[in-house]
Amino acid sequence: MKLPARIGNYTDFYSSYHHAHNVGTMLRGPENALMPNWKWLPVAYHGRASSVVVSGMDVRRPSGQTKAPDATAPTFGPSKSFDYELEMAFLIGPGNSLGEPVPIDCAADHIFGLVLMNDWSARDIQAWEYQPLGPFLAKNFATSISPWVVTLEALEPFRKPLPPQDPDPLPYLRGKNDFTFDIQLEAQLQTSSLHTPHVITRTNFQNLYWSISQQLAHHTVNGCNLEPADLLASGTISGATEESRGCMLELTWRGANPLKLPNGETRKWLEDGDRLTIIGWCQGDGYRIGFGEVTGSILPAS
Amino acid sequence: MKLPARIGNYTDFYSSYHHAHNVGTMLRGPENALMPNWKWLPVAYHGRASSVVVSGMDVRRPSGQTKAPDATAPTFGPSKSFDYELEMAFLIGPGNSLGEPVPIDCAADHIFGLVLMNDWSARDIQAWEYQPLGPFLAKNFATSISPWVVTLEALEPFRKPLPPQDPDPLPYLRGKNDFTFDIQLEAQLQTSSLHTPHVITRTNFQNLYWSISQQLAHHTVNGCNLEPADLLASGTISGATEESRGCMLELTWRGANPLKLPNGETRKWLEDGDRLTIIGWCQGDGYRIGFGEVTGSILPAS
Repeated sequence: MKLPARIGNYTDFYSSYHHAHNVGTMLRGPENALMPNWKWLPVAYHGRASSVVVSGMDVRRPSGQTKAPDATAPTFGPSKSFDYELEMAFLIGPGNSLGEPVPIDCAADHIFGLVLMNDWSARDIQAWEYQPLGPFLAKNFATSISPWVVTLEALEPFRKPLPPQDPDPLPYLRGKNDFTFDIQLEAQLQTSSLHTPHVITRTNFQNLYWSISQQLAHHTVNGCNLEPADLLASGTISGATEESRGCMLELTWRGANPLKLPNGETRKWLEDGDRLTIIGWCQGDGYRIGFGEVTGSILPAS
Repeated sequence: MKLPARIGNYTDFYSSYHHAHNVGTMLRGPENALMPNWKWLPVAYHGRASSVVVSGMDVRRPSGQTKAPDATAPTFGPSKSFDYELEMAFLIGPGNSLGEPVPIDCAADHIFGLVLMNDWSARDIQAWEYQPLGPFLAKNFATSISPWVVTLEALEPFRKPLPPQDPDPLPYLRGKNDFTFDIQLEAQLQTSSLHTPHVITRTNFQNLYWSISQQLAHHTVNGCNLEPADLLASGTISGATEESRGCMLELTWRGANPLKLPNGETRKWLEDGDRLTIIGWCQGDGYRIGFGEVTGSILPAS
């Protein structure tokens, strides 16, 4: 399998309410969990396009700077908190010229289709580096996507209206018939001692607060140009329940509650030799539309 | 003139101590001006490659969401605080494979040469959107670079040792003979009523704390792959003096002290019809090595 396209630009959104709320609660407490902008705009940042890789490629544990809260200086070494992020992403079709925003009701015309994505993350590197300009080396060592693109046309039977949003978005984010899709998603962990993969996340694409049309309209509203095969990702797709949390950071609450696996092993974070697989499908009446999988094993730091 | 290369990936560093200190002082006060990580690693984030444009292209004022501090909700409209950022950037030569860091003493072998850069910024959009994941629409509407690349070989006569750093960087950031260059830099503002451009910034490439070799070694230390013609930018190059501040945000201290122009006009921020030009040169004994210019006029919001 190969990458479905040469990814020119990669943007990662942060569009799951429960993911943003969980992470914000860990960092700032439940009162200040969400930043004031979160419900007004689909927060996003630019990721690294060159290190987007196809499913099946193994991923090497990154090394970098980290600093313990009580240490006076950082140290260098392999990341000790290696994580996955269960995401979906869409590829741009035609795109727009610089200076010409795409109105929200035309956004879907620019979306070719969707893939599964694992935005591998080194949480200890992220915690030390990310202020004030966002994640960088914590994520740009590898981002895996599934090789098959499922078009919007194929997803039509699984289209659902976007639930009402409160507060009402500004007009440029308000589509006439804005929509989401009923896509079931799972993350499975297989350690070297486990006989079969163990499901650790069960979630759904409908757990995203912001729609893909809103993401695209927001991205271009300042005139930013999207190009064919640009990749726009959802951010981690967590739901309201514990089993729907889409990364180890949330599942283990930053390592405080390790995952228990069926063979007695535990995990605070992913370990060398672990394989993480994300699958997704739409369940029709007597048929499924599958997204295949995005999978990768973790190689030890070099 | 055309872009000197097809830019695949664009990274923006934040490597001027005085710029980071000034911005941090405005946001958090002088005691907490620098984040704890700033002197340990060259802070950076991924920018937008598709909207890197060549000098001479006019730039449209972006529209977006902004929120006044005392407002309960954001509003949508043209940015009211349009800014330039005087930067330099380098283009990658060979680059590295995914998973293979470039040691600092080999970094220069991967740098093709340098250009001038203006990282246009909408400060009001930035203030509202940037937490927690960094700048996005505030900067990705356009980034201008000069068309001529000056190679490291041509800059050799102007090479200077990198001043000592305190604290000592970690070993992977410590080069044997790390260096900077004596490159003089100016930003000139021409309004539609001014007869000649007026110099508003006078600074020097040596005002960067982190070297280009340190930036490249840091970027790849986790295995991130750099590709030929990737663009790595310095961040705003401000010095210790008021006249060496490299953007309006610092020059006017967020609009509190408007710039006075020779014809009596004042500016808190850039206005429609203003032209901003950055030039750079190395002064030899009886000769100059010039970088040409990066220039652009501001078009009204559409």
